Amino acid sequence: MLFHVKMTVKLPVDMDPAKAARLKADEKELAQGLMREGTWRHLWRIAGQYANYSVFDVPSVQALHDTLMRLPLFPYMEIDVNPLCRHPSSIRDDDS
Amino acid sequence: MLFHVKMTVKLPVDMDPAKAARLKADEKELAQGLMREGTWRHLWRIAGQYANYSVFDVPSVQALHDTLMRLPLFPYMEIDVNPLCRHPSSIRDDDS
Amino acid sequence: MLFHVKMTVKLPVDMDPAKAARLKADEKELAQGLMREGTWRHLWRIAGQYANYSVFDVPSVQALHDTLMRLPLFPYMEIDVNPLCRHPSSIRDDDS
Amino acid sequence: MLFHVKMTVKLPVDMDPAKAARLKADEKELAQGLMREGTWRHLWRIAGQYANYSVFDVPSVQALHDTLMRLPLFPYMEIDVNPLCRHPSSIRDDDS
Amino acid sequence: MLFHVKMTVKLPVDMDPAKAARLKADEKELAQGLMREGTWRHLWRIAGQYANYSVFDVPSVQALHDTLMRLPLFPYMEIDVNPLCRHPSSIRDDDS
Amino acid sequence: MLFHVKMTVKLPVDMDPAKAARLKADEKELAQGLMREGTWRHLWRIAGQYANYSVFDVPSVQALHDTLMRLPLFPYMEIDVNPLCRHPSSIRDDDS
Amino acid sequence: MLFHVKMTVKLPVDMDPAKAARLKADEKELAQGLMREGTWRHLWRIAGQYANYSVFDVPSVQALHDTLMRLPLFPYMEIDVNPLCRHPSSIRDDDS
Amino acid sequence: MLFHVKMTVKLPVDMDPAKAARLKADEKELAQGLMREGTWRHLWRIAGQYANYSVFDVPSVQALHDTLMRLPLFPYMEIDVNPLCRHPSSIRDDDS
Amino acid sequence: MLFHVKMTVKLPVDMDPAKAARLKADEKELAQGLMREGTWRHLWRIAGQYANYSVFDVPSVQALHDTLMRLPLFPYMEIDVNPLCRHPSSIRDDDS
Amino acid sequence: MLFHVKMTVKLPVDMDPAKAARLKADEKELAQGLMREGTWRHLWRIAGQYANYSVFDVPSVQALHDTLMRLPLFPYMEIDVNPLCRHPSSIRDDDS
Repeated sequence: MLFHVKMTVKLPVDMDPAKAARLKADEKELAQGLMREGTWRHLWRIAGQYANYSVFDVPSVQALHDTLMRLPLFPYMEIDVNPLCRHPSSIRDDDS
Repeated sequence: MLFHVKMTVKLPVDMDPAKAARLKADEKELAQGLMREGTWRHLWRIAGQYANYSVFDVPSVQALHDTLMRLPLFPYMEIDVNPLCRHPSSIRDDDS
Repeated sequence: MLFHVKMTVKLPVDMDPAKAARLKADEKELAQGLMREGTWRHLWRIAGQYANYSVFDVPSVQALHDTLMRLPLFPYMEIDVNPLCRHPSSIRDDDS
Repeated sequence: MLFHVKMTVKLPVDMDPAKAARLKADEKELAQGLMREGTWRHLWRIAGQYANYSVFDVPSVQALHDTLMRLPLFPYMEIDVNPLCRHPSSIRDDDS
Repeated sequence: MLFHVKMTVKLPVDMDPAKAARLKADEKELAQGLMREGTWRHLWRIAGQYANYSVFDVPSVQALHDTLMRLPLFPYMEIDVNPLCRHPSSIRDDDS
Repeated sequence: MLFHVKMTVKLPVDMDPAKAARLKADEKELAQGLMREGTWRHLWRIAGQYANYSVFDVPSVQALHDTLMRLPLFPYMEIDVNPLCRHPSSIRDDDS
Repeated sequence: MLFHVKMTVKLPVDMDPAKAARLKADEKELAQGLMREGTWRHLWRIAGQYANYSVFDVPSVQALHDTLMRLPLFPYMEIDVNPLCRHPSSIRDDDS
Repeated sequence: MLFHVKMTVKLPVDMDPAKAARLKADEKELAQGLMREGTWRHLWRIAGQYANYSVFDVPSVQALHDTLMRLPLFPYMEIDVNPLCRHPSSIRDDDS
Repeated sequence: MLFHVKMTVKLPVDMDPAKAARLKADEKELAQGLMREGTWRHLWRIAGQYANYSVFDVPSVQALHDTLMRLPLFPYMEIDVNPLCRHPSSIRDDDS
Repeated sequence: MLFHVKMTVKLPVDMDPAKAARLKADEKELAQGLMREGTWRHLWRIAGQYANYSVFDVPSVQALHDTLMRLPLFPYMEIDVNPLCRHPSSIRDDDS
């Protein structure tokens, strides 16, 4: 099941740079693991924003929520979730 | 170059059903042609909405605009465009 | 899987009363069938509004979308969907 | 009498983890007591959010307000209250 | 039980004047009956707006909803409801 | 002359509890004096919010402003003012 | 007593031009009478908008409301009212 | 040339009172100088708000900007600028 | 003097195509005349929108307003005006 | 390819003045280099705001994003990006 997720990251401007770097490295490692296993289907940076549009493929809403809660940057993110379904006009195999 | 596009369709509730059906059929045919040629990279229906999230792959902003203007449902749509770029954490080939 | 849905109905003020009555009767019949089969888990009227908060229990996002699209009042509704999951503090059997 | 309540929790990102843990434990204990006595009728987590949708069953508006004010997380929450009433289409015993 | 209600009236600018006058007369008659019986506790016009702030005193949410639905101008109003309770600083007998 | 005022109080979550208690006690004392003299005509708590709806009866806009500025919690409040006038449908003596 | 008023005019695009011209002429005549008597203290057009910022000088809220309701364009306007009082830094005689 | 300016002042609640007093005194002195020279044409306090509506008379946009930037409270203000022009219905000499 | 203007065109979906074509042709002719004389300094289409960002160079606010009011599409446009001034970091001759 | 960018700068009011001055000087130097090479096509200050409207000319979305990320003030800015294309009515050489 697919979910469209917008994540906007708001790190405090005075956060310790080492802590910020560690958080980002941890986030990247976890994200890439989720991509390899197919859970995090797409990840794009929105130009000019510290934000991304993502598509997740999960077996349930609970799995989506648990995945998002595990992200190291979760406490610093605004998250917007929209459930997706196949569009009747789509001819692409990977749109569902 | 990738662009994230949200389209929300607002047909007048009293539109002639035959006209609505023709518009939707024309839209579908054009959309599928654009998918076949790779311009309309992704198309998902947002659950519960007469709306979609799409990703377009175009050589220029002008090409994106010309494509959207050709859509038969364009006069009835609210369109929201966000330019995308590769996310440094993405490991997927098809995210750029 | 549970989804929280807010539906706000906006019938044109000059709609033919007979048509409005028929739409509402059809909506009621379909809604009650969905309640009997367990798909439409909860339905509450929001006081002072022609609007409701509902909870749907469906096997997939696609099933949710197809159900909402079948509602006779769908063309006249603004719909807002939020996926739900079990709250770790809930002790109620029927909250998931 | 039923009230629909949305609670969004905004803990300061630099809150002492022990204090946060204690607040959450106290909140959970109080919430479960209110569920056992039937006051907190439903509690669902909104996917991807530190937020919930709840339904309270109380004898009066005053009782609702007093209950919400007692929540340990109240000072950190944005709360949105909507009074509910039975929907004429509902056939479920527990929708009022 | 008290509820704060804001009503904003939006009559179509091309409504037949006789129909508008009849609607307003019916609304006034019903409103004054509700005031006499104590249900419609306060009614103030908001300066410069075709809108009012009101306070209703009703035995239940259902009674509030049924009352609002009976208003002849209901189909033309945007309604905003907020449940009220006694303020601990109030010393006025008629604030609850 | 009547004015409808909504006050939303936003105390910093880390305010010294003794200072907060003193501010609230001072606010209560001043508020009750204003109620006794008839300036603060109504005061209701909005359920689930640290906010109130109030009605002030003052001889001028200047008097309203001076009164609000004297409130000990003024620096922590968002205030929304709407001038009121008698509604032609009101039959209540105390609605003007 | 002074009130700041923003008026935004929204005439239907298909309004009969003769009717629109008559409404505007009537509005102008009434406005100029109110200016001559000192009630409509200031009137400025907002650049690029069919809208104005105005300042009214009236003996009461009721007088303000009655004046605005008499405007021929009232049914086509969105009106935003803010009560004004003398600013402690002002040295201008005509700012109160 | 006239510009309508809304200024909303947001001083941090924990600002040193002496610093706040000095800022306000400096602001007042500068404002009164600008009023004497005719640049700051009007200044009204919005009732119940730490905010004002002002009208500036300047030879150019640059002059307006430079004036606003010199205000001691500028770093603590939200500023909203609207260019004004003479309204065709105005008969007042000082409305342009 | 420079002004940044955003224009969003909202033609009724059922407008007579000949009338729409004529309006657009008239708009284009007037726009190009204003460009040739240097008043309409820049004009860009916003991708995916029936909207543009423009920069006007005018001797006064009044001249800006009169120019915008002459546009054949004015009754169908939402217009947003922001006065511009030279940025201290700009090194471009044509940015003022 | 052209992009319209609005940047709003929000420096903390208690930022060390030397740090703020250094950030602004670095920003200015980088901005002027980007203007000299033609990337930062236009830069205007919005009157009364610590904000600018800019137009960038870049070979790709990625180039735009990388450029914006390099700005020293990026962590303190809200950025709004809109892709532009040539307007069919423009006759100016430098509008594309």
